[in-house]
Amino acid sequence: MADVAAKARKILVAVDESEESTYALSWCIENIFTGGNTNDALILLYSIPPRAVYSSLDGTGYLFSSDILATMERYSNDVAQCVMEKAKRLCKDLDGVKVETIVERGDARDVICQAAERLHVDMLVMGSHGYGVIKRAFLGSVSNHCAQNVKCPVLIVKKPKTNGSSK
Amino acid sequence: MADVAAKARKILVAVDESEESTYALSWCIENIFTGGNTNDALILLYSIPPRAVYSSLDGTGYLFSSDILATMERYSNDVAQCVMEKAKRLCKDLDGVKVETIVERGDARDVICQAAERLHVDMLVMGSHGYGVIKRAFLGSVSNHCAQNVKCPVLIVKKPKTNGSSK
Repeated sequence: MADVAAKARKILVAVDESEESTYALSWCIENIFTGGNTNDALILLYSIPPRAVYSSLDGTGYLFSSDILATMERYSNDVAQCVMEKAKRLCKDLDGVKVETIVERGDARDVICQAAERLHVDMLVMGSHGYGVIKRAFLGSVSNHCAQNVKCPVLIVKKPKTNGSSK
Repeated sequence: MADVAAKARKILVAVDESEESTYALSWCIENIFTGGNTNDALILLYSIPPRAVYSSLDGTGYLFSSDILATMERYSNDVAQCVMEKAKRLCKDLDGVKVETIVERGDARDVICQAAERLHVDMLVMGSHGYGVIKRAFLGSVSNHCAQNVKCPVLIVKKPKTNGSSK
């Protein structure tokens, strides 16, 4: 087991502001980073939605002013920082593991797939937002997309239902 | 880290006769069972295709004789035994981990989802057969189905392309 235990792993965890994401990271820390392997690296990745989403017309046909755009920009950066702080706090007990953070702008599906490829990670870990059948059929989900398109192993962690129901 | 390292995990690995499955199990042994956690349990699950697939008419409209059916039955049992022997050999260096095997008859998607639920496993590990877009769109794949329907975390391990191509 000695050489197996010493194997260094580079694990990418996609984080966002959802409870599902927090649960996935916590689960990963408790179940994957067992044994205190000091060679492991954990990379936390957050993707800020692309500017195109809110830089054109709003629903009523009015153009956003540059002030509003600047406020939105600040807000999305604040959210990113807040998510990363929270994620890093969850990792504070992982003494032996090197924790890095990456924030990138773009569609989460593209950002995650490209980062997994570029960083040559051993595994991608994601939460599942558990969209309903209809929504998933039309929109797809980020985790489904990544599971099908990323070449490395993908671990999808679902947050258990809190009411204990079977569905 | 002490209490984290001591956490017992029950991991279900779905195996079949494919190279993708062998790769997924090997990857899991090297990357998930690190640190020699003696509380872990690894359950190997193989599903024999349901009898309905070959017990009625064949393509030419002839009924299979009972001899042929018995031969097919023996063959599928032999395959199951062979797959399990191979899988257990891969696990032989996992001294501290309790390895169990389960063989069940039925559609692989149902067998895997039901076993994950019934056995209350912490994680399901599967290979990905990497069907093409067209085939996946019409047939779906076992790993996609399980990733969407199993409630526990699901790890999908893809076998890297041997020719080193990027697609």
